[in-house]
Amino acid sequence: MKKIDVCVLGATGTLGKEYLKLLSRHPFLKLRSVTGYTSVGKKLCEAIGTGEETEDLPAEVADLEVQPTQPKSVDADLVFSPLPNEVARRTEEEFAAADFKVITDAAPHRMDSDVPLIVPEVNPEQLGLLETQRKRGWNGFIAATPNCTTVGITLALKPLEPFGINYVVATTMQAVSGAGYPGVPSLDIIDNVYPYISGEEEKIAAETNKILGRNADPISFAVTATRVPVLNGHTVSLHVGLKEEVTEESITEEMRAFRGKPQTLGLPTAPEKPLIVFTDKTRPQPRLDREAGSVPGMAVTIGRIRRGILDNCVQFIEVSNNTMRGGAGGAVLTAELMAVEGLI
Amino acid sequence: MKKIDVCVLGATGTLGKEYLKLLSRHPFLKLRSVTGYTSVGKKLCEAIGTGEETEDLPAEVADLEVQPTQPKSVDADLVFSPLPNEVARRTEEEFAAADFKVITDAAPHRMDSDVPLIVPEVNPEQLGLLETQRKRGWNGFIAATPNCTTVGITLALKPLEPFGINYVVATTMQAVSGAGYPGVPSLDIIDNVYPYISGEEEKIAAETNKILGRNADPISFAVTATRVPVLNGHTVSLHVGLKEEVTEESITEEMRAFRGKPQTLGLPTAPEKPLIVFTDKTRPQPRLDREAGSVPGMAVTIGRIRRGILDNCVQFIEVSNNTMRGGAGGAVLTAELMAVEGLI
Amino acid sequence: MKKIDVCVLGATGTLGKEYLKLLSRHPFLKLRSVTGYTSVGKKLCEAIGTGEETEDLPAEVADLEVQPTQPKSVDADLVFSPLPNEVARRTEEEFAAADFKVITDAAPHRMDSDVPLIVPEVNPEQLGLLETQRKRGWNGFIAATPNCTTVGITLALKPLEPFGINYVVATTMQAVSGAGYPGVPSLDIIDNVYPYISGEEEKIAAETNKILGRNADPISFAVTATRVPVLNGHTVSLHVGLKEEVTEESITEEMRAFRGKPQTLGLPTAPEKPLIVFTDKTRPQPRLDREAGSVPGMAVTIGRIRRGILDNCVQFIEVSNNTMRGGAGGAVLTAELMAVEGLI
Amino acid sequence: MKKIDVCVLGATGTLGKEYLKLLSRHPFLKLRSVTGYTSVGKKLCEAIGTGEETEDLPAEVADLEVQPTQPKSVDADLVFSPLPNEVARRTEEEFAAADFKVITDAAPHRMDSDVPLIVPEVNPEQLGLLETQRKRGWNGFIAATPNCTTVGITLALKPLEPFGINYVVATTMQAVSGAGYPGVPSLDIIDNVYPYISGEEEKIAAETNKILGRNADPISFAVTATRVPVLNGHTVSLHVGLKEEVTEESITEEMRAFRGKPQTLGLPTAPEKPLIVFTDKTRPQPRLDREAGSVPGMAVTIGRIRRGILDNCVQFIEVSNNTMRGGAGGAVLTAELMAVEGLI
Repeated sequence: MKKIDVCVLGATGTLGKEYLKLLSRHPFLKLRSVTGYTSVGKKLCEAIGTGEETEDLPAEVADLEVQPTQPKSVDADLVFSPLPNEVARRTEEEFAAADFKVITDAAPHRMDSDVPLIVPEVNPEQLGLLETQRKRGWNGFIAATPNCTTVGITLALKPLEPFGINYVVATTMQAVSGAGYPGVPSLDIIDNVYPYISGEEEKIAAETNKILGRNADPISFAVTATRVPVLNGHTVSLHVGLKEEVTEESITEEMRAFRGKPQTLGLPTAPEKPLIVFTDKTRPQPRLDREAGSVPGMAVTIGRIRRGILDNCVQFIEVSNNTMRGGAGGAVLTAELMAVEGLI
Repeated sequence: MKKIDVCVLGATGTLGKEYLKLLSRHPFLKLRSVTGYTSVGKKLCEAIGTGEETEDLPAEVADLEVQPTQPKSVDADLVFSPLPNEVARRTEEEFAAADFKVITDAAPHRMDSDVPLIVPEVNPEQLGLLETQRKRGWNGFIAATPNCTTVGITLALKPLEPFGINYVVATTMQAVSGAGYPGVPSLDIIDNVYPYISGEEEKIAAETNKILGRNADPISFAVTATRVPVLNGHTVSLHVGLKEEVTEESITEEMRAFRGKPQTLGLPTAPEKPLIVFTDKTRPQPRLDREAGSVPGMAVTIGRIRRGILDNCVQFIEVSNNTMRGGAGGAVLTAELMAVEGLI
Repeated sequence: MKKIDVCVLGATGTLGKEYLKLLSRHPFLKLRSVTGYTSVGKKLCEAIGTGEETEDLPAEVADLEVQPTQPKSVDADLVFSPLPNEVARRTEEEFAAADFKVITDAAPHRMDSDVPLIVPEVNPEQLGLLETQRKRGWNGFIAATPNCTTVGITLALKPLEPFGINYVVATTMQAVSGAGYPGVPSLDIIDNVYPYISGEEEKIAAETNKILGRNADPISFAVTATRVPVLNGHTVSLHVGLKEEVTEESITEEMRAFRGKPQTLGLPTAPEKPLIVFTDKTRPQPRLDREAGSVPGMAVTIGRIRRGILDNCVQFIEVSNNTMRGGAGGAVLTAELMAVEGLI
Repeated sequence: MKKIDVCVLGATGTLGKEYLKLLSRHPFLKLRSVTGYTSVGKKLCEAIGTGEETEDLPAEVADLEVQPTQPKSVDADLVFSPLPNEVARRTEEEFAAADFKVITDAAPHRMDSDVPLIVPEVNPEQLGLLETQRKRGWNGFIAATPNCTTVGITLALKPLEPFGINYVVATTMQAVSGAGYPGVPSLDIIDNVYPYISGEEEKIAAETNKILGRNADPISFAVTATRVPVLNGHTVSLHVGLKEEVTEESITEEMRAFRGKPQTLGLPTAPEKPLIVFTDKTRPQPRLDREAGSVPGMAVTIGRIRRGILDNCVQFIEVSNNTMRGGAGGAVLTAELMAVEGLI
């Protein structure tokens, strides 16, 4: 692979730091530039905190100078945008208009009809929307990755498509890292379940339908999104209505056999198996399984598969790493896919 | 009311201590006797721990001598049994055979066809089973209270009966106190969700159908029971399929208007309103709402009521205090009801 | 007692709400006015949140209209100020200059030489400083209560004064509620100990010396202040160097016998015993003991008293409720003392 | 290095599993045998749990058959004993008498005068006691590693020896994993600090003096040992009295420069730097720093170094990984040292 120069916008934030770890030693994505806001002009190692000996960025990354978050300050082929939603829309459009290829974790462009919303194992073909997007007159483009909870759900649902998915009743138990930093106040979550995450339930429904190509014939979703005292790893309890009859065994088999394009292509951040299915009833658990996979944190774990009620239903629990698979790792895997496909 | 002498079996356990608090100052249930196992012969105040100044049992209770857990050592009209399931079946039968009226929190007798399984606001009429139970040849009897999670679910479902309940998809997020002491190891639950509670899902389905009188035409249940790092207060996310169309408003109204026999009779441990319904989307929360109600911990709190998917569905979240409403408080309220009905 | 009209500044904040609970049913402090910032013009019950049925403010309090935080909008004899430090200094001086008697929880004025810093059981005589303060030309005044951690420490040290206190080595394990809301991010504290609280160690040393009248001959302090995943209740491990030899028994006896002026006067918010001493080695624990005392949360609990190393040392652990004893309760008790002394 | 065949006793326990991870890919310690109690006869991968895909023992380890815990069932040069204290004394003596070289994490033999108690960087010379131990008439021997909290304390104190250590006042905030599994009940520790750990304070004092060779002239210890809601990583707040005057800078320098024999010898499990010293006041934190070091979890982290009170005192906070540095990692490092020294 030819080397691709990349930049991380807002590299000093919680999610930004996840990118630094992934890109510091990447085989062909070369971190050449980082941007920030309050830390502009500092060395990256000073900007992201301690500069102490337990951190281990390579020197050429640690010594990068934090640039302003604007196109003219950045020199890169590809820009990752883990920016907060408030600033993401405008900034990403400025970068795309200035010829940058942008992959964003942020929400604003996800549902635009000409923006691909990608989970690389699930809908690589949606990258075709970039062609449509050229009508915007940009030389660059914007491709999006989904909400952190949606990623795990779409990966779990994909192998069920042959059975015909009618509806999903889901309750999420989400980790506090999903809300960024400072994020969830400790007074709201210690010894507690917080029963509401603004906008989350709607996003999960809409994004999953877009990713699975079901906009015309949408899957019905009844989602209850809650927050629990867990640092990382979103747990989702799902009850899925199907068109065809299934057995525990057939579902387990489909999930275990599932592979996507990233696996076929052998992309560096692709886990060997996107889904790991437990028969042990006490798994998955977010603390034990959030680093699952041959690329740690990139496999989604599934357990407690069993028949539901009503005709042709199946229930299971799914755990996914919300900052890796649902954040930086998902975006880097998307970049790898696009690079191999010749889109960058 | 005439005074009734009561005894608590296994009074030095976690749940036993909850009874002590409730019975120490009860208007007509007089705690005359307590039993234990390893602490037999000690004063109650020494047996239950510190004897330190922050505890406040009245002297006549604190000074009770712990008796062996056997009928001949107990002098009382009514016996509360918060015993562990392993010993409950045999012990409770011995007491019933020895003329004691037994109210049990334990599981073994709950599903016996001649044992009433009571949530006082929901199915007071099921006390009629005590008549059938006389065929066992006991002068005493056994009445049971349900699993701690079931209590909140039945109270939440009762006002929905007029709409015809078809099925329930539920995910529970249960508190660690539901497993007693020592119960859940901290290594299993800090920064974690534990995805399985042995036997719980089956109990919720079977007990709810018995309580709601639906054994012949059972409600379908798809329950996923999980444990979260919460001390007290079981949270349940419910999706309920109904026969008739409903609105958020009609459900809210029915729940707010719901009262049971304990409210009509003005029983001392009955909360004015069995159900408290929030319109604030960020409620109920177990930490904020586990002491809800005019009798703290006896009201069940409901929130996030909204239409579900599929025909005639409704979703909501329910929180109930598992040691009070789902434990000692529920049993004491049952005793009050039985006393007023002349059954004790 | 004649009634005294009181106002709470910033009544809709975390600490403000604690005052509302205490003042809603106070025998002689009548809550007549509340102020806020973003909620000005709203009814108090709407401003502080849900207005739902689990809250139980009396109607005359719930219906108060939130006023701007300025002297001309307030009608009261006494003003409680749980304001954030950034705004407290100027606002409190404006109120004092406008004839209001101000009792503040905030830090800015605590160390002023003419401002009494009061723990009612420990240094009621320091109210004499109000006389000196008249030189400021105010018709009102400012009296201060200490940092939440200092309150427990001074109460624990007071009975040791007869033995001559030389130095204190202390490690605190402080609750997240001490930092207010939103306060400590959950990502900083779940599964963690946070080893630094800015300014806290210096405050504890300086304020304790002021309260104990040791400015001229200060006790040496070596304090390490940490934050732990506890909601309420600051735990402090103390090692105290004394001039005279002591025994565990003598220390225990002095602490148990300790009473202050609030106890002598029978003030409504005074606990019967300011200090509760455990012999049970597993106590005090913040979760079990933060509501200790005949007025819940107003007693400080002590345990694990034992000889230290070096000459004449004693070690023990102290737990105190940081929002009640170390916050609203301490201020209300101070107000009660001042009322009885004729200062309001 | 020539290969050494090793066995782990009680390999299916919490600490046992830590050994499996370390020994599965060790360059010269070859795991040939594992023992257990209830799982005898099973394959190791079945015995330790799920056998699911997220575990990654190499096949030759996963397929080991669990043997009874008795000398005749074991074929190895060296035996690691992470056994519970109740069974450790007798079992370890049986193995030593049967010619096995035993390295134990358990407490029973630690304070025996002829048993070396080893922290490899601190007192490698104490291995000389094995010569004395030959008087017991065993062909094997027993060498011990200290209590998990003691390990971090001795590593932090070692570089201070040149200044003359007089006394230590310490408060520990220990992780729940230090108590094994099931260990600390969640009801005792969520939202709480548990103020007492039986025997811990005495062990820290006695073992530290033995390790530092100070039995004849012991350092005075005043230790308060508490448990906090942290999964792994013991935090200790120390106040150390020294004979000579020091500065923050001199202490920092000594700690940063500290290396031991394992570093000189380049042992595989030796971290490059045994101590990592932070100048960032918000470090060390157990969650962020428990994996510190070039061998993760083997470096002890230090922060908040500052002058104490009294003459020549220094204060600091120390965090160490209690299952790695204070458990399996410490024992494996000891084995490596002994192997290189020709003792195995």
